Amino acid sequence: MTLTLTLDYASALIFALTGALAASRAQLDIVGFIFFAALTAVGGGTLRDLLLDRDPVFWIADPSPLGIAAAAAVLVFFTAHLLESRLKWLVWLDAAALAVAVAAGVDVARDLGASTPVILVMGVATGTVGGLTRDVIANEVPLVLKQGELYVTAAFGGAAASLLGLRLFDVDPIWATVICVAVTFGLRAGSLLFGWQLPVYRSRPPRA
Amino acid sequence: MTLTLTLDYASALIFALTGALAASRAQLDIVGFIFFAALTAVGGGTLRDLLLDRDPVFWIADPSPLGIAAAAAVLVFFTAHLLESRLKWLVWLDAAALAVAVAAGVDVARDLGASTPVILVMGVATGTVGGLTRDVIANEVPLVLKQGELYVTAAFGGAAASLLGLRLFDVDPIWATVICVAVTFGLRAGSLLFGWQLPVYRSRPPRA
Amino acid sequence: MTLTLTLDYASALIFALTGALAASRAQLDIVGFIFFAALTAVGGGTLRDLLLDRDPVFWIADPSPLGIAAAAAVLVFFTAHLLESRLKWLVWLDAAALAVAVAAGVDVARDLGASTPVILVMGVATGTVGGLTRDVIANEVPLVLKQGELYVTAAFGGAAASLLGLRLFDVDPIWATVICVAVTFGLRAGSLLFGWQLPVYRSRPPRA
Repeated sequence: MTLTLTLDYASALIFALTGALAASRAQLDIVGFIFFAALTAVGGGTLRDLLLDRDPVFWIADPSPLGIAAAAAVLVFFTAHLLESRLKWLVWLDAAALAVAVAAGVDVARDLGASTPVILVMGVATGTVGGLTRDVIANEVPLVLKQGELYVTAAFGGAAASLLGLRLFDVDPIWATVICVAVTFGLRAGSLLFGWQLPVYRSRPPRA
Repeated sequence: MTLTLTLDYASALIFALTGALAASRAQLDIVGFIFFAALTAVGGGTLRDLLLDRDPVFWIADPSPLGIAAAAAVLVFFTAHLLESRLKWLVWLDAAALAVAVAAGVDVARDLGASTPVILVMGVATGTVGGLTRDVIANEVPLVLKQGELYVTAAFGGAAASLLGLRLFDVDPIWATVICVAVTFGLRAGSLLFGWQLPVYRSRPPRA
Repeated sequence: MTLTLTLDYASALIFALTGALAASRAQLDIVGFIFFAALTAVGGGTLRDLLLDRDPVFWIADPSPLGIAAAAAVLVFFTAHLLESRLKWLVWLDAAALAVAVAAGVDVARDLGASTPVILVMGVATGTVGGLTRDVIANEVPLVLKQGELYVTAAFGGAAASLLGLRLFDVDPIWATVICVAVTFGLRAGSLLFGWQLPVYRSRPPRA
């Protein structure tokens, strides 16, 4: 199995778990779980493939990610009540999925010979769009809007670090992927655990 | 006129009526009615065509669905005040549009020789995305989020039933379409009228 | 530089400013500003290019709009506190960006030989989708939903006026663009300043 496929499968699986957890918070039925799991699982990669005119879209070429998403949804439907805090699981799984999906976006765009800014955008878009769609449809506050948390920054940092490694230090592509996943997840985890953040914009009146 | 075109036209018309009703609930002007009517009318089929790389997208090849949507919007603008409950009409017309659009999605994907899981996804996506976009933009609770109602399930059931008919019982494609529309609408109507539902997920604390 | 490119760059710049202002209202960090600026800057043109199967999408062919958006985001991050009312700036810059983006949509669709209804839709879609995505994700009320304001109407009017000029009076394409920008902005500005509006739909009970 190629690296790209592995990353697409892994991010589909983890994102599917977060989609199913969002469905559990909305108290949907099992088909609702599968719907949100599949949507979150393939959302980011689908946009990436449409933008890069990759034909066919990855899950049309090989629908396994849909099967993975459905299995993840069923698993969550029957076990989520065992979790202490579903929101905490959602956020941490989302961090892992974000990290893997950013790497998948960077990897595909690099393979297609895209320019550096486009590779960075594809990393960030592939990482964030699945979760964003999940949150907008499920009526949750999108994670990109959480003040004082690194989210887009983590995705951008991971993508940038892996490109830096490739271009400046000539690391192996597989290591570039490891760097991307590690930096993205590290920044996000640091933000969640230790409150790492960038200064946020503050005006005098908070919402003028 | 081919079967696919008929289905695309019919779902455009009925979805346009629901979009215009949503616009009436938001008290927009006539152009706002046309905007929501057109968006709802072609949203699902547009995503289907982009995903399947059908070129050109159906309403670019033949813009009649836009004209149908505009006409439906004007009709609703001048007659909606005669309706007892616009919300009820919206929900029932949406059920009809869902049924027809699922069939349109299944039909196109089947024609292009897509695999079974992809056909099912195209049916569900074509059926649900127009109404979903309408609800997200118009700030209504998306119908896919309504607890204890069959919606995605109805779409999935209709698509699956028609494939079952085709693959196992070798029915004529036109009958497969009839089955798809009937099962989708039947499940949705049963849910609205008799409260048919699948068990929903319930945790101890409702939203942890 | 071609006319299309100039329009795409200009609308990217102005829409980026509105995206950054929306980010300031959500009190995000600088990367959040860049995210919203880029999303708003290229959203409408990206949908246009996907729908018209223009390959590659404009900012993938030439990523300058991304750089423009990032620069605009940084500028707003450090200067927005100087503005009297960020909401007022957002709305007026959005009017300017709308006008330019509608012209960009009309121009591209015309170049590709699209039919009249498709040109009108591309104008409206290119003009409105960037701001719409910004508002949906940033949890603001979409400007298309503001009652008694011309928004989609302004976009539609500008696109229609420029086509009228081209088809009936055979004006030069560059003048058609000027007409499109002027009519769109004029209608929107008249609506904001003088309360120009079309009659809105009113039912007996406001939200039945």
